[in-house]
Amino acid sequence: MALIVQKYGGTSVGSVERIQAVAEKVKASAEAGNQIVVVVSAMSGETNRLVELAQAVQQPPNERELDVLLSTGEQVTIALLSMTLDALGQQACSFTGAQVHIRTDSAHNKARIQDIDGARVKAALDAGKVVVVAGFQGVDEQGNITTLGRGGSDTTAVAMAAALKADECQIFTDVDGVYTTDPRVEPKARRLRTITFEEMLEMASLGSKVLQIRAVEFAGKYDVPLRVLSSFEDGEGTLITFEDDPTMEKAKISGIAFNRDEAKLTIMGVPDQPGVAHKILGPVAERNIEVDMIVQNISQDGTTDFTFTVNRGDFPKAMDILRRTAKELGAREVVGDDNIVKISLVGVGMRSHAGIASTMFQSLADEGINICLISTSEIKVSVVVQEKYLELGVRALHEAFGLTEA
Amino acid sequence: MALIVQKYGGTSVGSVERIQAVAEKVKASAEAGNQIVVVVSAMSGETNRLVELAQAVQQPPNERELDVLLSTGEQVTIALLSMTLDALGQQACSFTGAQVHIRTDSAHNKARIQDIDGARVKAALDAGKVVVVAGFQGVDEQGNITTLGRGGSDTTAVAMAAALKADECQIFTDVDGVYTTDPRVEPKARRLRTITFEEMLEMASLGSKVLQIRAVEFAGKYDVPLRVLSSFEDGEGTLITFEDDPTMEKAKISGIAFNRDEAKLTIMGVPDQPGVAHKILGPVAERNIEVDMIVQNISQDGTTDFTFTVNRGDFPKAMDILRRTAKELGAREVVGDDNIVKISLVGVGMRSHAGIASTMFQSLADEGINICLISTSEIKVSVVVQEKYLELGVRALHEAFGLTEA
Repeated sequence: MALIVQKYGGTSVGSVERIQAVAEKVKASAEAGNQIVVVVSAMSGETNRLVELAQAVQQPPNERELDVLLSTGEQVTIALLSMTLDALGQQACSFTGAQVHIRTDSAHNKARIQDIDGARVKAALDAGKVVVVAGFQGVDEQGNITTLGRGGSDTTAVAMAAALKADECQIFTDVDGVYTTDPRVEPKARRLRTITFEEMLEMASLGSKVLQIRAVEFAGKYDVPLRVLSSFEDGEGTLITFEDDPTMEKAKISGIAFNRDEAKLTIMGVPDQPGVAHKILGPVAERNIEVDMIVQNISQDGTTDFTFTVNRGDFPKAMDILRRTAKELGAREVVGDDNIVKISLVGVGMRSHAGIASTMFQSLADEGINICLISTSEIKVSVVVQEKYLELGVRALHEAFGLTEA
Repeated sequence: MALIVQKYGGTSVGSVERIQAVAEKVKASAEAGNQIVVVVSAMSGETNRLVELAQAVQQPPNERELDVLLSTGEQVTIALLSMTLDALGQQACSFTGAQVHIRTDSAHNKARIQDIDGARVKAALDAGKVVVVAGFQGVDEQGNITTLGRGGSDTTAVAMAAALKADECQIFTDVDGVYTTDPRVEPKARRLRTITFEEMLEMASLGSKVLQIRAVEFAGKYDVPLRVLSSFEDGEGTLITFEDDPTMEKAKISGIAFNRDEAKLTIMGVPDQPGVAHKILGPVAERNIEVDMIVQNISQDGTTDFTFTVNRGDFPKAMDILRRTAKELGAREVVGDDNIVKISLVGVGMRSHAGIASTMFQSLADEGINICLISTSEIKVSVVVQEKYLELGVRALHEAFGLTEA
């Protein structure tokens, strides 16, 4: 008998009809001989409704009280799903975060799970019940209600799986797995049967919104086998595995991620002195602007060019800051471009296969695509190109690395 | 410094604007130098919305899960009210029933409070905060969420006041106190400055819906001074007092209650034998029909007539049962009337003043009102009359017992 933790997000439980569909799926899993813990989010729209109520009385809302308010969203769902299971003849029992002692720190609205006492859940499972747990919420040491921040239900599911030493943690979502790339850009994109945690982390951080990055980190840390599946269709989804899986060796590249939400800034003709990178990026960091890629060219005539990328929304603010810095440093010029995208190849196979980057550059060049910036890590090569080349570039790389074939 | 528990019902917190009005009232009470605990209900309409969601997935809904669902209603209100107080510069802290250990039995949907651990509330009060507690809900010994049933927020307030030994428990409602009778029937009805617990219990059980009868019983049992006030207007409301209050002696009658929701049934010509009352009422009780007044006439020719009243909604079912009983007992006839009302005089002064009942009957006779049934208790005289005489009868009695004058 396997112990499986299943997580269903807000869209999957967004109406009475969808809750009924989820209950059928859960019941089928239980009848297949498994012990099932279900973690659910608030019904879609509910969290926004509650946030609007809060903002109508206080701006910004008191953080402790906002958690008291928002945690009702998942509490409604656990009750409704448990009732629905009961109506289908499947015994079930709901628990709030506080009831199963999902202990967090006291950082309201963005708390982190510290510990879960699985005893109460285990007792209910052993009594033959499906256990339905409210995602996204916990309780601090003083008994205050906390929330993990948006998307925290994935983390609840993984933490619950770790605490119960579950055989698998299944994240049900509106896509049926992790794809080699976004099928809206490359219709030949193929669902991956497996992907490693490291690759998944890169894909997630590069804009593939299938899983919350914190949940993936958590699963990797506690060795929780994680699977992404569709709430709406049957299928085996994508299993996120550990790298020492022997079947992992064959593919060099697992997928192509991209991010449209990019802008780049360059400060040209900066005196090439020690500490200049800090002088440029320090003021940017102080304004809480996250910097992604950083490239410094070789020095010419004692000056250098320095380029970095930011989220597109931060572009105007970052340009202002950089222009002030340029004056202070006596730099020649500041130029910026918010019409760019980042395309990344991701794959643990890169480690043992040379020539990945050059194949990538060649494929893009064959299509006449100019590369503005390059950045590499152990399992990833990222390039920045003009936005208009996004689809063309992704499809060219998908073809070049043979991702279409299984 | 007084410790005051204030309770605001669903209508009083039915919108963001009303919550703001409540927060202003609470803040004023705190600034007058009092420690304030506020008990609130769900926003009006919210409980019905949740019940409908439950009924859409299971009928009848699982009782344990219904409590998990319904308890979110008050949780939303405590968060919003605490935020609103905070926005007004009044520190506040919310607690669910579970967080302040409102320990109940495990009778879901109709649980009874067994114990409250006031320590957490006291600590927050001593830290200068207004404490906002979710009404209507508690937690059983196993940590399951329970609810006290509709109107249970009054009981929460009284129990909280008892546990904290509060100086007063103030129930804010949509009327500004307890009246000598319903002002919609007798415009000359006058707000009572005080009423005794016994009288309040009689008034409540006779259809004056100002307070939940369980809350009044609870307050009487634990010597909690209770005051009914308006959420919407200023005023001192009505204080519910203990009978040994020396100012109590002057009034014979405190008020006139009435109940339109009545029907009477008579079985005629029943053999007058021991056990006949049980044979008549037993089948009625078995079908969960509540019987109010019971009158048996003197025996004539070895047979007797037996009359009782029930809620009007139970009338057809009760008639069916009684007709079957009549056949079995060989009774002569069954007659019924669901066009009747009950009018009652209530007052602890009756104990020491003779002639109340005869004055009542005389006043009604003067108006040509025929009395169908009479029933008395130590502090109450009730009569059943034809429904058409309700207004006339109430006004005649209001005049006859001098209730118009203060």
